[in-house]
Amino acid sequence: MKFGINLFPTVGPAEKSAGAHFEESLRLAELADELGFHHVKTVEHYFHEYGGYSPDPVTFLAAAAARTRRVRLVTGAVLPAFTHPLKLAGKLAMLDNISQGRLDVGFGRAFLPDEFAAFEVSMDESRARFDEGVEACRRLWSEEDVVWEGRFHRFGPVTMLPRPWQAPHPRILVATARTPASAESAGRLGYGVMLVPSINPREQVQQTIGLYRDAASAAGFKPTEEDIHMSYSCYLAEDPQEARTQGKRAHERAGRALASAVEAWRDTRSADYAGYEKIVEKATGRGDFDRSVAQRKALVGSPAEVRAAIDEIRGWFGDFTISLQVISGDMPYEESARTMRLFAEHVLPHYAND
Amino acid sequence: MKFGINLFPTVGPAEKSAGAHFEESLRLAELADELGFHHVKTVEHYFHEYGGYSPDPVTFLAAAAARTRRVRLVTGAVLPAFTHPLKLAGKLAMLDNISQGRLDVGFGRAFLPDEFAAFEVSMDESRARFDEGVEACRRLWSEEDVVWEGRFHRFGPVTMLPRPWQAPHPRILVATARTPASAESAGRLGYGVMLVPSINPREQVQQTIGLYRDAASAAGFKPTEEDIHMSYSCYLAEDPQEARTQGKRAHERAGRALASAVEAWRDTRSADYAGYEKIVEKATGRGDFDRSVAQRKALVGSPAEVRAAIDEIRGWFGDFTISLQVISGDMPYEESARTMRLFAEHVLPHYAND
Repeated sequence: MKFGINLFPTVGPAEKSAGAHFEESLRLAELADELGFHHVKTVEHYFHEYGGYSPDPVTFLAAAAARTRRVRLVTGAVLPAFTHPLKLAGKLAMLDNISQGRLDVGFGRAFLPDEFAAFEVSMDESRARFDEGVEACRRLWSEEDVVWEGRFHRFGPVTMLPRPWQAPHPRILVATARTPASAESAGRLGYGVMLVPSINPREQVQQTIGLYRDAASAAGFKPTEEDIHMSYSCYLAEDPQEARTQGKRAHERAGRALASAVEAWRDTRSADYAGYEKIVEKATGRGDFDRSVAQRKALVGSPAEVRAAIDEIRGWFGDFTISLQVISGDMPYEESARTMRLFAEHVLPHYAND
Repeated sequence: MKFGINLFPTVGPAEKSAGAHFEESLRLAELADELGFHHVKTVEHYFHEYGGYSPDPVTFLAAAAARTRRVRLVTGAVLPAFTHPLKLAGKLAMLDNISQGRLDVGFGRAFLPDEFAAFEVSMDESRARFDEGVEACRRLWSEEDVVWEGRFHRFGPVTMLPRPWQAPHPRILVATARTPASAESAGRLGYGVMLVPSINPREQVQQTIGLYRDAASAAGFKPTEEDIHMSYSCYLAEDPQEARTQGKRAHERAGRALASAVEAWRDTRSADYAGYEKIVEKATGRGDFDRSVAQRKALVGSPAEVRAAIDEIRGWFGDFTISLQVISGDMPYEESARTMRLFAEHVLPHYAND
């Protein structure tokens, strides 16, 4: 098992200024580096409290890279639908060099109708744009004189600069929220996956991981624990009751941010997003905090409780990489830092010799 | 007068690995902060040794911001033609917050045909795309619920997150290489300008500055020395002969990188770039190092010689902001650092009480 932190902002200017958010997030990245966490991750979203403070994860991760020495930097995720592949491959290669090879790149399809509308991109092209964007980046990183004749972009021959630090390219992870076929395709291509346990039943996550592993194995790849990422809301305190009270507040706050961001799904349908209209329900249901904790969809409690929960999750899914969401809601810096310190002291050592 | 450094890379993998380039550039940014320079600047270019290590200046400047405390971060320049304004406004607002208000944004039109071709953008739309991109960013930074109905983009109502640290928005500078009318328009809008003294006769730069100041003043603005930026190749050594020998090598190396990047201008014409085909000649002529130094288009020599040159330049143009290009060619880190140290010790104090 590997454990990192996911600095997924779910606040707007009314709760926390962007200046405070970034200052605190950079301090948490330094703390992650110091305490031996595996990675720092952040997201790409726009306009809403749900992730909107992070329209460009590469910008934040470049600052985090400059402040840290060993922790990995993970995009969770960048969205090829909204950025030209030359731009995306170029800036990620810069980050790979700035961090001296500490970059893992998660790519996502995006799923918020408001974002597609603002960028004037049809949701029905989502999968095609995603596939083209990821493959164009892969080729720009690993080949010279690339000629690209895609459906959305045509260029070349060009040799992208800078060349990435990692050869042939940084680890690629594919975000798949609800579509098992995406995980299967990632396995076939030798990529990792980012799954979303909070909105899917445990059995479905298990099944998706199974499909992924089988597809990878059939294609001759051997995925490691670093090829499967999942994020969990996380709040630790010595006193389990305090953890529950504060964790609940943060979880529900983040749930409201998600619910507001997915509003537009009420009136949106797309063949590329079968069943996503149900996400409105799920987003609302996510407010059921006690059930989330009981179902091991949120890691909240004393260090011993959280360790027990992780052991159970590991039993279901095997070894993988967990990203702890430690800033959900308008979390004060000191509480995020406490969660990380308690986790590093009491939970990390349990998995250190894996 | 203000003095910063321009970390404009002019190397490819054959001369210096990207890892070494970024490690050295971050150390030079820290040194600039320490020595009291005004800013650190970098460029946006693609594919060629001429700037190609920097396809996204925001990524590098975010890392530089995280390593520094007081120096300003300047894009010189970002290119709206190749990035959606929502993306550009968003990541620049992140950088403004990460640096706690130390960002100045230079916008450029771009001028390399290979870049326009790769992004499938017509050079004949260059000015229109530039104007739309800058204005969209300005509105996204300073207004809420922005509705944009442009020629190239339509979106809204959206409120960009994060809000910039500086209110109403970071200083805007418009790069104008050869077109006096652009400087005039910048003045009218209350923006600053970035001029290119190396490829223009002194009289033309004077005239452009005059047009700029008059236009700004007529529109009720009072530009400061920080509103006029110009970059100069710079090499200092105690021994003037050594400075000339090493400075010449670097200058000619950078000149060859430019000449190679502008190759495509031999077969390119665009109404938006009147006379740019001559840039091929200029790029070649730039090899005449001794003339450049004599004409004060490159700051090379002993500290006393360079101070005299700056006094002369200041006499022509008035007070403005100089960006010293201290990494031209495959400059060893130690020589860039020496140039900066000598400049900080012997030249900066002369202008400290301005």
